[in-house]
Amino acid sequence: MPETRPTLEAVAAQAGVSRATVSRVVNGFAGVREEVREKVQRAVAELGYVPNSAARSLVTRRTGAIAVVIAEPERRVFADPFFAQQLRGVSRELSASDTQLVLLLVENTRDYDRIGRYLAGGHVDGTLMFSLHRDDPLPSMAARSELPTVFGGRPGWPGAEDDPELLYVDSDNRDGARQAVRHLLDRGRRRIAVITGPLDQTSAADRLEGYHEALAGAPGANGVPGASGAQEAGLVAQGDFTAEGGERAMTELLDRHPGLDAVFAGSDLMASGALRALRARGRRIPEDVAVVGYDDMESAAWSDPPLTTVHQDIEEMGGLMASLLLRRIGVVPAVAELAPVVTPVRLVVRSST
Amino acid sequence: MPETRPTLEAVAAQAGVSRATVSRVVNGFAGVREEVREKVQRAVAELGYVPNSAARSLVTRRTGAIAVVIAEPERRVFADPFFAQQLRGVSRELSASDTQLVLLLVENTRDYDRIGRYLAGGHVDGTLMFSLHRDDPLPSMAARSELPTVFGGRPGWPGAEDDPELLYVDSDNRDGARQAVRHLLDRGRRRIAVITGPLDQTSAADRLEGYHEALAGAPGANGVPGASGAQEAGLVAQGDFTAEGGERAMTELLDRHPGLDAVFAGSDLMASGALRALRARGRRIPEDVAVVGYDDMESAAWSDPPLTTVHQDIEEMGGLMASLLLRRIGVVPAVAELAPVVTPVRLVVRSST
Repeated sequence: MPETRPTLEAVAAQAGVSRATVSRVVNGFAGVREEVREKVQRAVAELGYVPNSAARSLVTRRTGAIAVVIAEPERRVFADPFFAQQLRGVSRELSASDTQLVLLLVENTRDYDRIGRYLAGGHVDGTLMFSLHRDDPLPSMAARSELPTVFGGRPGWPGAEDDPELLYVDSDNRDGARQAVRHLLDRGRRRIAVITGPLDQTSAADRLEGYHEALAGAPGANGVPGASGAQEAGLVAQGDFTAEGGERAMTELLDRHPGLDAVFAGSDLMASGALRALRARGRRIPEDVAVVGYDDMESAAWSDPPLTTVHQDIEEMGGLMASLLLRRIGVVPAVAELAPVVTPVRLVVRSST
Repeated sequence: MPETRPTLEAVAAQAGVSRATVSRVVNGFAGVREEVREKVQRAVAELGYVPNSAARSLVTRRTGAIAVVIAEPERRVFADPFFAQQLRGVSRELSASDTQLVLLLVENTRDYDRIGRYLAGGHVDGTLMFSLHRDDPLPSMAARSELPTVFGGRPGWPGAEDDPELLYVDSDNRDGARQAVRHLLDRGRRRIAVITGPLDQTSAADRLEGYHEALAGAPGANGVPGASGAQEAGLVAQGDFTAEGGERAMTELLDRHPGLDAVFAGSDLMASGALRALRARGRRIPEDVAVVGYDDMESAAWSDPPLTTVHQDIEEMGGLMASLLLRRIGVVPAVAELAPVVTPVRLVVRSST
C-alpha cells in the first residue's frame, strides 16, 4: 500500500529536523551529530519509514547495484561450486536490501580493461572482488574508479596490509591447514604430502604455511626435521584448485615419493582429483594413503570414500562480504567501525583418514 | 600498435564522405543511403579500420555492456549446467566484440522490479533473456526500457508471434521429441510415458506436442489410439527440469502405470532423476524400461547406463543469441535482415534404450 507509506517529510516533522537531515541520516552519510541522528532514527522506527530506493537513487545518484568480479575465467566460475556458494550468500544478502547483484563475467585477462571501464562508468555503487591473484590489476581498477570495495580473501598485493580502509573477509586458512596436518599426525602418518593451490593467492600460500607449521611441531615427521623439510623432501606439489590439477599433482607426488602415507589437498576439488590418481595407482584410502581436503563442499560427504576436510562456511563468507559493503556504502547503517573479518574453520573427520 | 591504427578521419577521406556519416554507418544507425553505406564499408575493409570502443561510446552513449537475465532463482542458475553452457557461448561471443557480460542475478520474483529499474537505468545497451515463463513480466520490462532484446527460446506470451521485430534463438523442440519417441517405437516400446518440463515454458510445451505427434503416427501405441491417448492413459507427468522433479514424476508414473516400458524425459537432469526412481523400484534399464533424455549434457554420456538423448548445441545457441543482439545494436554490422533462429537437433543413441 504505497499511498499510506510514511514520507520523508513525515519523518522530518516527527523528528523536528529538516528533510535534508533525514535524507543524510537515512542514506548513511557522515557529518550528522549523534543526537540528531538518534532523533531521526527514532522517528524512522516509530513511523515505520522505509526509504524508497528509486527516490533514494535520485538523491544520492546511487544505482542500487553492486558488481561482483571473480578473477577467474567464466568457465571456472561455473564449474567450481565454491563460487556458486559464495554468490548464493552475496545474492541473499543483497536481495534482502533490495540491491541488484551484477556479476561481471571475464573470459580472460585481456577483458580486464573493459571491466575497469564498466566499474568507472557509474553503473554500480560498489564492488565485491573474489579470487584475486598477487599481480591482479583489479584492486587498482577499483581504487581508480573510487568505488567502495570488499575483497574475498586476505589481499596479498604489496602495501595492502598498510591500508587502514581495506575491507576483506577471509577464513583462518593457516589454522585450517594446521588442524588438517595435526589430525594426520595423530593418525600416525609420517610422510605427509601437500597439494597447494596457486601460490600467488593468499588462501593457497596461507594453507601451505599452516602445513609447514604443523610439521615443524612434529620433528621427525616427513623424514626430515624443521619447517623446510617437506619442500626439500619433494612432498610439496602445486595444483590450481581444479580436480584435474589435483590429479596431476598427486601423480607427480607418487612418482617422486611412492612411500607417502598421507596427502593434504588445499581444496576438495583437488582432493577428488587426488583420490582418482591414488586409485589409478592401486592405493587404498585410507589404509595406504590418508586424504584430507579443504572447503567441505557438499560433494565431500558423498565422495568415495567420504572426505575428511576443513569446513569453512563459504555461503556465510559471501554474505559477510555483501553485508560489509552495504554498510560501507550506507545502504545499511553501520553500527560499529567496519573492519576485516576472519572466520573460524573446523576439521570434519570422515573415512578418508 | 594503436598509433598506426587507421582513424575515422582516414575512413571518411577514403570514402569521400563526412566523419559523421562514417560514424553513423560504423555504429549501425539507420538513415544512410545504401550506396553511401557501401562506400563506407568498402573503405573500412580496405583500411582495416577497427572502431575504438571507448570513442564509440562517447559518440553513441553506449555502455559497451549487455545484460543477461535468467528468469530462474540464482540457486538454479548455478546448479543446472544448462545455464553455464549457454552463458559460455554468450561470454565467448561478447568477449570477441569487447562487450561486457553483465549477469543480473535474481533471488525470487519479488526482485523483478529491481531488474526493471536497472535495465531502464542506462547501464546496458541490450539484454538477453533466458528461461522465460508464460506470465513473466520480463518481456514487458525490456519493452518499457526500450532496450534491444533477444530471447532464449520461442516466446510464448500473447501477441509475441505477431511482433515482426521479435528476435529469439530456439531449437527445434517438437522435432527433437518426435525423434525421441519414434526411436522408442522403433525399439518396440508400446507404453511410452513422458516427463515434461514446466508447461508454461514453450520448450516444455513444444516437446510434449512432439511426443503426442509421434504417438499419433503410431495408432495402438500406449494402448489407446490418437494424440490424446497418452493424456487419458495417465502417461504424462509434469516435472520442473530438475533431477528431483524427474524422480518425483517417474515415481508417480510408476504408481499409475507399473507396466510402462519407456519414458521420454524433457531434460537430461529429469532423466537422471527418473533413472534413480526406476532403480529404486527394481526396474532394469533398458530391459524393463527404456529412457530417453533431452539436451545431451556432458553428464548424459557418463550416466549409468549412458543416456540416449536429444542433442542440442546449447553453447552455440548462447553464442547465436549474443551474435543477434550485437547485430541489432550495431556493434557488429548486420549483413542481412535479422530474424529468429531455430537450430536443428539430433538423437544420440546410447545404452539406456
